[in-house]
Amino acid sequence: MTLKEAVEKLNEIEKAGYALGHAQSILHVDGDTVAPKNSWKGRGKALAYLGELTYRQLVNPEIGEILDTILQNRDEMDEITFRRAEVMKENYDDLHVLPMEEFIAWQELANESGAVWHEAKEKSDWNMFAPYLEKLLTARRRYAALKDPEKPAYDVLLDLYEKGISMEMLDPFFRALREDLSPVILEVAKREKPVPAFLKNTWPVEKQRVFSKKIMDLEGIDPLNCTLGETEHPFTNGTNKWDVRITTHYHEEDPFSSMYSVIHEGGHALYELDVRDDLQFTCLAGGATMGIHESQSRFYENIIGRSRAFCTPLLKILKEVFPEQIGSLTEEELYSAINLSKPSLIRTDADELTYPLHVMIRYELEKAMIAGDLAVSDIPGEWNRLYKEFLGVDVPDDRRGALQDSHWSFGGMGYFPSYALGSAYGVQMLREMEKTVDVWSAVAAGNLSPVTAWLTDRIHQYGMLKKPQDLLPAAMGGPLDASVYTGYLKKKYSELYGL
Amino acid sequence: MTLKEAVEKLNEIEKAGYALGHAQSILHVDGDTVAPKNSWKGRGKALAYLGELTYRQLVNPEIGEILDTILQNRDEMDEITFRRAEVMKENYDDLHVLPMEEFIAWQELANESGAVWHEAKEKSDWNMFAPYLEKLLTARRRYAALKDPEKPAYDVLLDLYEKGISMEMLDPFFRALREDLSPVILEVAKREKPVPAFLKNTWPVEKQRVFSKKIMDLEGIDPLNCTLGETEHPFTNGTNKWDVRITTHYHEEDPFSSMYSVIHEGGHALYELDVRDDLQFTCLAGGATMGIHESQSRFYENIIGRSRAFCTPLLKILKEVFPEQIGSLTEEELYSAINLSKPSLIRTDADELTYPLHVMIRYELEKAMIAGDLAVSDIPGEWNRLYKEFLGVDVPDDRRGALQDSHWSFGGMGYFPSYALGSAYGVQMLREMEKTVDVWSAVAAGNLSPVTAWLTDRIHQYGMLKKPQDLLPAAMGGPLDASVYTGYLKKKYSELYGL
Repeated sequence: MTLKEAVEKLNEIEKAGYALGHAQSILHVDGDTVAPKNSWKGRGKALAYLGELTYRQLVNPEIGEILDTILQNRDEMDEITFRRAEVMKENYDDLHVLPMEEFIAWQELANESGAVWHEAKEKSDWNMFAPYLEKLLTARRRYAALKDPEKPAYDVLLDLYEKGISMEMLDPFFRALREDLSPVILEVAKREKPVPAFLKNTWPVEKQRVFSKKIMDLEGIDPLNCTLGETEHPFTNGTNKWDVRITTHYHEEDPFSSMYSVIHEGGHALYELDVRDDLQFTCLAGGATMGIHESQSRFYENIIGRSRAFCTPLLKILKEVFPEQIGSLTEEELYSAINLSKPSLIRTDADELTYPLHVMIRYELEKAMIAGDLAVSDIPGEWNRLYKEFLGVDVPDDRRGALQDSHWSFGGMGYFPSYALGSAYGVQMLREMEKTVDVWSAVAAGNLSPVTAWLTDRIHQYGMLKKPQDLLPAAMGGPLDASVYTGYLKKKYSELYGL
Repeated sequence: MTLKEAVEKLNEIEKAGYALGHAQSILHVDGDTVAPKNSWKGRGKALAYLGELTYRQLVNPEIGEILDTILQNRDEMDEITFRRAEVMKENYDDLHVLPMEEFIAWQELANESGAVWHEAKEKSDWNMFAPYLEKLLTARRRYAALKDPEKPAYDVLLDLYEKGISMEMLDPFFRALREDLSPVILEVAKREKPVPAFLKNTWPVEKQRVFSKKIMDLEGIDPLNCTLGETEHPFTNGTNKWDVRITTHYHEEDPFSSMYSVIHEGGHALYELDVRDDLQFTCLAGGATMGIHESQSRFYENIIGRSRAFCTPLLKILKEVFPEQIGSLTEEELYSAINLSKPSLIRTDADELTYPLHVMIRYELEKAMIAGDLAVSDIPGEWNRLYKEFLGVDVPDDRRGALQDSHWSFGGMGYFPSYALGSAYGVQMLREMEKTVDVWSAVAAGNLSPVTAWLTDRIHQYGMLKKPQDLLPAAMGGPLDASVYTGYLKKKYSELYGL
C-alpha cells in the first residue's frame, strides 16, 4: 500500500465515520428532546444497525496496514493527517479488542442494564440492579485484560476517558482533596445559612426560557451554531463547530438550577464551537479528553459563573427578566445566594465546595469494585459509610445513594474522576490566565470574550490535535497540583462563611 | 438461491433500509425544526453518505435474484412477504434505472436547484432559476426514457407518486374540475364577504400552542406516538407507528392558519399511526400512494374540519383558550368565517373551493413543459394567463406566481396531481362512510373516533399491503368520479354564498 493510497483510505474511513457518528448523535439528541415517548423502539433498531456499520467501518481488515503506513512515515505527513491516524489508532485499539459479537453483546448488556437501573432507582432497589452490575463488572474486567493484561484493570478503564491517567496519579490527588476539603466542609456545615427570602418566589418557565437566551448571549454562544433544548438531564452534543446542541431543565421554584446548567453546558459548547476549521469533520474535531472538556464547563459554571465579579452582569439580567422576584437584591446578597454550601446526597446538585468529595467517594468505590475487593452487595453500605465520614450526611435510601448516577449502568467505570480533574485543571488555568488577562474587570463588565479568547488560544482551537500531556501544562502553567484547586476552594469558602 | 435464503436476504436488506431511512428522516426533521441554522453543512455530509449507502443496499448485485426467487413462488409465500418483495421490486425499478454516478449527480442537481430556487423566489427572479429548471427537465426526461421508453415521459413521472395514474385518466378529471368549478369560483368572488371583526384580534403564539394540543386531542392523536414541532412549512414525517412528527407554523394575526395545518398534518399522521403492527419496520408501513395520503389529510382538514358539525366542538375549544378574542361568536358565524372563499395567488393558502384549480393549472403546465411544448422562459407568462382565465386573478410577480412552490426545484414534476386526487378520493370516501356511520352527529359531539375507525378499517391499517387499485374502490364505493367531488363543492359553496 502506497502512502497516497493509505491517506485516501483514511479519508474514506473518516468520511463514513463522520456520517455515521453524526446520524447516531442526532438520533440520540432527538430521542432525548422532542421525539415521542414511544419512539425508542424504532430508534433502537436504527442505532443498532448504525453501530454495527460503525464497528465494521473502523475494524476493517485493511485498517492496520492503512494506519501503519501513515504512522511509519511521519516525516512525509502533515501534522493533521499524522495525528488523525494516531487518534484513529487509539480508537481502533479501544474497539477491536472485542470481536464484533462480543461488542454487540456488550452494547446489549449496557442497554438492558440501563433500563433495569432506571427502574431500580425509581424503586430504590439495589438487589434489582446488582446482578446486572455483576455482569458489567465481569465484562469490564475481561475487556481490560484483553486490552492490556500488564496493567491493573482500573488503569485500563481510566485511560479510556482520560488518556495517560492512572491510579498512581489519582490516589494522591484524591487524598489531597479529602484531607484538605473534608474539614472545611464539616465546618461550613455548622455555619449553615438560611435560604434567602427572594429564592422562595416562583420563576415562570416561559420567563426562564427568555433568561436562558440572555445567559447564552452573555456567555458568547452564537445561536446560529448552537441551540438549546429541554431534557430531564442536561447535556451537550457537538457534531461539528456549526452544529452544537445544549439542553437544560427548568424548575419553577429555582432559576439557578437551569441557569447553571446552561452556563455549564455552554462551556462544553464553546469548546466544540471554537475548534479550528481545518479539524472539522475529522476525528480531531472534539475535545481532547473528558477531563479537559469538564474543565471548560466547570470553568464557566463555577470559576466565572459563581464569582463575585459575575454578580454584576447577572444581577442586571435578573432584574430585566424577573423584576418582581428580584426586587432590591444587592450583588453581595446574590453572591452569597449562589454560593450556599451544604453537604448533600446528590452529586449533580452539589455546590462547588462539596462536589469533589462526591467524586472522590465514587473513585474509591470503583477502584475496589473493579479490583474485586468490594462485593456488589456491599457497595451501598460502603457508599453510605463514606458519605457519613467525609460529608457528614446520612444516606436514607439507595435511590439517593449508590443508585443515583447512571454511569455504572452503562459500564462507564473510570469516568467519574474526569469531573474532579476538570475542576482542578480549571483553577490552574485561571491562575495562568490571570497573569496576562484582567479577568475580573472583564467579567464584571459582562464581557467574557477575553476569557474565551484565552481558552480558545490555549485549549479550544486544537481539538484533539495536541496530546493532552502537551496541551495541559501549557494551559495550566505546569503539572496537576491539587493544592492550587483546594487552595482556591478554601479561600473562597473561608471568606463566604467567615472561617 | 433457495427460497429460504432469498427471504433471509430480503429481511437483511429491509433491516438496513429501515435503519438508513429512519436516520435520514430524523436528520431532515431535526434540520427543519430545532437544529442550528448553520448545521446544514454537517447534515449534508451525513445525508450524502447515508443516501449512497441506501442506494448500494437496494441496488446490490443479488437483488434481482432475491426478488425473482420470491416473486416466482407466490403460493409458498405469506401475503406480507410476497407484497414486500413486490414493493421492493417497484422501488428497485425506480432507482436502478440510474447508475450510481448519475443518481448522485441527480441528487446534487436537486439540492443545488433547491438552494437557487430559494434565492430566486426571494428575489422574484425567474431567470435565475430558469437554467436549473432546464437541467432538471432534461434529467427527468432522460430518467423517464430510461425507465420506460414506450410511455410518454409525464406518465412515467406521474406513476412515481401515484401508481397506475396517467394523463389519459387525469385529462378528463381536471377538465371536469375546470368546467364545473371555475364558473362557481368566479360567481363566489363577486359576492365576497368582509373579514369578520373577531378575526382582527391578536392570537398569542403561546396560547396557540395550547390550542394545538387540544386540537390534536380532539382529532385523536396520541402524543406518546406523535409530537408537534414548528417549521416554516408544515409537514408530517413517520418512520413507524410509534414515531410520527407533525409540524405547524404560528401567525399571531390568525389562529386558523396553524389550526388547519395541525388538522391536515394530523390526518397524515393518523394514517401512519394506524398501520397494522405486523407491517411495521417493513417497506409496507407507510401510506399506499401520495394521493391516498393526501386524501386523509384533506379529509380531516376540509371535509371534517370545515364542516358545520365541527363548529360545535371547535367553538367550545376556542372559547376555552381564547375567551376574549372569541366573545359571543356563534357557530354559524364561525362556520362562515372558516369557509371564506376568494380566488387568490398562493396554492397553500387557498380555500377548499379554489384549491383544485391551483393544482389543475400546475398539471397543465407540467404536461407541456415535460413534453417540450412549453419553453422554460414561457412558463411564467403561461402561468399568469391561466390564473387570470380560471381564477380571475392578476399575478403581480413570479414570487407569488410560478416560483411559489418548491416542487419543481427538487424535480418533483408529477407530484401536484396527487393533491387534487386526494381531495376527490376523500369526498367519495365520505359518501361511502355516510352509508354506515352517523358521521355528523359524532363530529358535532366532538367524537371523531367512528370516522377514524372507518378510515382505519378501509385504508389506514393496510399501509402498502394492498395495491391502490384494490384499496381505493373498496373505500370509495367505486372508481374515481370527479362529479362527486365537484358536486360536494358546488353544494357547500352555493349554500354558503346563496348562489
